[in-house]
Amino acid sequence: MKTIILPEKSGWEELCRRPSIKKSYLEEKVRSILLNVKSDKDKAVYAYSEKFDGIRPESLKVTPEEIAESVRLISPEIKNAIAIARENIEKFHKGQLTPEPALETFKGVRCWRKNIAIEKVGLYIPGGSAPLFSTVLMLGIPSKLAGCREIIICSPPGTDGKINPLILYTAQLIGITDIFKTGGAQAIAAMAYGTESIPRVYKIFGPGNQFVTKAKELVQEEGVAIDMPAGPSEALVISDSAADPEFIAADLLSQAEHGSDSQVIYLTDNREMIDKVKKQIEYQLQALPRKDLASGALENSKLIVLPSLDICIEFSNVYAPEHLIISTSDPHKLAGNVINAGSVFLGSFSCESAGDYASGTNHTLPTNGYARNYSGVSTESFVKKISFQEITGEGIRELGPAIEILAEAELLNAHKNAVSLRLKSLGNG
Amino acid sequence: MKTIILPEKSGWEELCRRPSIKKSYLEEKVRSILLNVKSDKDKAVYAYSEKFDGIRPESLKVTPEEIAESVRLISPEIKNAIAIARENIEKFHKGQLTPEPALETFKGVRCWRKNIAIEKVGLYIPGGSAPLFSTVLMLGIPSKLAGCREIIICSPPGTDGKINPLILYTAQLIGITDIFKTGGAQAIAAMAYGTESIPRVYKIFGPGNQFVTKAKELVQEEGVAIDMPAGPSEALVISDSAADPEFIAADLLSQAEHGSDSQVIYLTDNREMIDKVKKQIEYQLQALPRKDLASGALENSKLIVLPSLDICIEFSNVYAPEHLIISTSDPHKLAGNVINAGSVFLGSFSCESAGDYASGTNHTLPTNGYARNYSGVSTESFVKKISFQEITGEGIRELGPAIEILAEAELLNAHKNAVSLRLKSLGNG
Repeated sequence: MKTIILPEKSGWEELCRRPSIKKSYLEEKVRSILLNVKSDKDKAVYAYSEKFDGIRPESLKVTPEEIAESVRLISPEIKNAIAIARENIEKFHKGQLTPEPALETFKGVRCWRKNIAIEKVGLYIPGGSAPLFSTVLMLGIPSKLAGCREIIICSPPGTDGKINPLILYTAQLIGITDIFKTGGAQAIAAMAYGTESIPRVYKIFGPGNQFVTKAKELVQEEGVAIDMPAGPSEALVISDSAADPEFIAADLLSQAEHGSDSQVIYLTDNREMIDKVKKQIEYQLQALPRKDLASGALENSKLIVLPSLDICIEFSNVYAPEHLIISTSDPHKLAGNVINAGSVFLGSFSCESAGDYASGTNHTLPTNGYARNYSGVSTESFVKKISFQEITGEGIRELGPAIEILAEAELLNAHKNAVSLRLKSLGNG
Repeated sequence: MKTIILPEKSGWEELCRRPSIKKSYLEEKVRSILLNVKSDKDKAVYAYSEKFDGIRPESLKVTPEEIAESVRLISPEIKNAIAIARENIEKFHKGQLTPEPALETFKGVRCWRKNIAIEKVGLYIPGGSAPLFSTVLMLGIPSKLAGCREIIICSPPGTDGKINPLILYTAQLIGITDIFKTGGAQAIAAMAYGTESIPRVYKIFGPGNQFVTKAKELVQEEGVAIDMPAGPSEALVISDSAADPEFIAADLLSQAEHGSDSQVIYLTDNREMIDKVKKQIEYQLQALPRKDLASGALENSKLIVLPSLDICIEFSNVYAPEHLIISTSDPHKLAGNVINAGSVFLGSFSCESAGDYASGTNHTLPTNGYARNYSGVSTESFVKKISFQEITGEGIRELGPAIEILAEAELLNAHKNAVSLRLKSLGNG
């Protein structure tokens, strides 16, 4: 962790730089995986599973028996916690598709937009170091609320050839049972192109390692939509001297434990807070099972003193953090000036873990500075908004002449003619 | 134009295939343009202008004098037509950012989303065969409504070194005066990286030729957002025997005149309509100034008889047209089954030209089948939706234990600890 006291504004951009990721090396590997899955389909997916997961599953599709087993394996305590999270996430995501009323933009001209679900979507759920069943909730619930017809999940199997029961339990709970045992770039390829077992989808969601991320980027070029570009996870905490250093350290560490490529930033207007937070980080770190990952992330991380809380927000807008925690005595005042952030947490009890799991907001958020130009996942991410219009004879009679003039000015005479013929039929050509 | 009578469903996918675009040849060229503009900035932009536009403009930025001149040059008739279009587009796009109310998802847990404009956006307006000032309205109006702080336009100069006055007039009308004389891949590069004259932006909008499209695709990989992937424009018209073949032919031709890579599809349940529409197309085509472009597009185009209107909609959903015109006696009945389309026009007076210019809907729409997974441009395209949450002591006391259980099940102990410490401070750790 670096401490920086009152940096010059000219140095902010440098301070906001993310740890760099090597890309070119990956691209070649991922391209070859995509090509192989495109041509050899299931056969290639099985081969990569043997190679990367160390296992050849009996079938790619999870069986009803495996799903039923998962329901037996999960403790009532966890089931209850999942039920609470589910309810809050559902409540929050239900409010995200309010239909817009039709508008008469001009006499005789009615226009409206309609939310229509993307028919086929694929959700990628990482396996690896943590069984991210919370992501099943965060992607599965809005896909169901949007009304997607085909929702599939791909997730890598463990060395026992099975997907973690927490993932299976959560998926079946929200009504998703087309679940496939494959991970990495091959899973993204399978969803993008389709195989004998795995259906092709139109949009792919979900986090993953660099292979997954690169594969999503490459299939996007071929017309498959993706939720958003991805990078390592990050959090920025702003506090004044009134905040509890223990809480701040805990929030920074909960971000840092995601992986050694994560980044955390702490901003304050109070120099003494830096030492207090640092001490707490060192103390709490010792007790963490994922201590090594967190330590790695802390190496990329910075504690920065700035002249005022307003300037902290200004800095944060340059950084554009995925998670922004504002733990000051009047967080609403600062919140009003947030321009670039994925999700914002106000006050000392609004910890990032709450949003990660159970408060109701989505945890699939823009990282790597993408909060400047992308939103997090919402129910809207699973629909298209299609515009409709209906024009009456009177409408075209009144509006038509303007359209004729505009089309002619753009030298598009056939566009003009489509109106002229209609005006003629109405007796005013 | 090919006529196809009652095709087998197994052949639909083949019928829905777009004319293919060669890509690899382009990519190398565009990559080198991007690299050069990234390193040499203005100097490279000027050099490409000389090479591709045949002109080296005095300065890249349009001067206030040039803008004032455009205001003098445009006729009152065109100004009036633009004013009408502007008003309708504003009305329709104003309704697209309704704020969502804050929700109490759980006792003591308040969550909400806020629309915040993307700070810096760039609008690309093609020059070339038609001065697309209507696109200035379609992109400029929602960017202003969203509240973007920096809105710039790039458009290629003509051989006189000037941007078409229709484009300048329209831009200044809606309050955009940072306009730059550059087109093609070099314009996209300049907006993505910034040069001495042209500021860097976070999201790039607008149509363009294959160089522009490829450049947008490539800068997207570097973190710049784009409106949507692009392909040639297209329309699909469905009618029964009650429709006027003259209107249908005019609509098909107004799509076809966009360029020889455009595609138009006509679907009907009535075999005789095919001949009537064909005759009208041949007749109207003769009078068109852009006859050659339209003829090229018609070569890619198809007239198809299907067993029923319901099956026409089914086919249309497989094709996923940018524009869908439903000209039947009961268009609303069919419209209810539309799943994949960019913009839908209902009834015999709702011609595509209306939506292209003046009814109020946006004309920047998903092409090339992307209507399956992308929406057209709207005011929402210019904002991020940032989520916020505020949790009280009571809220974390009640919800906290569930978060602890979920975090522990995901093996993320620091996430759990962030809650546990807060619960402890409240006396129930």
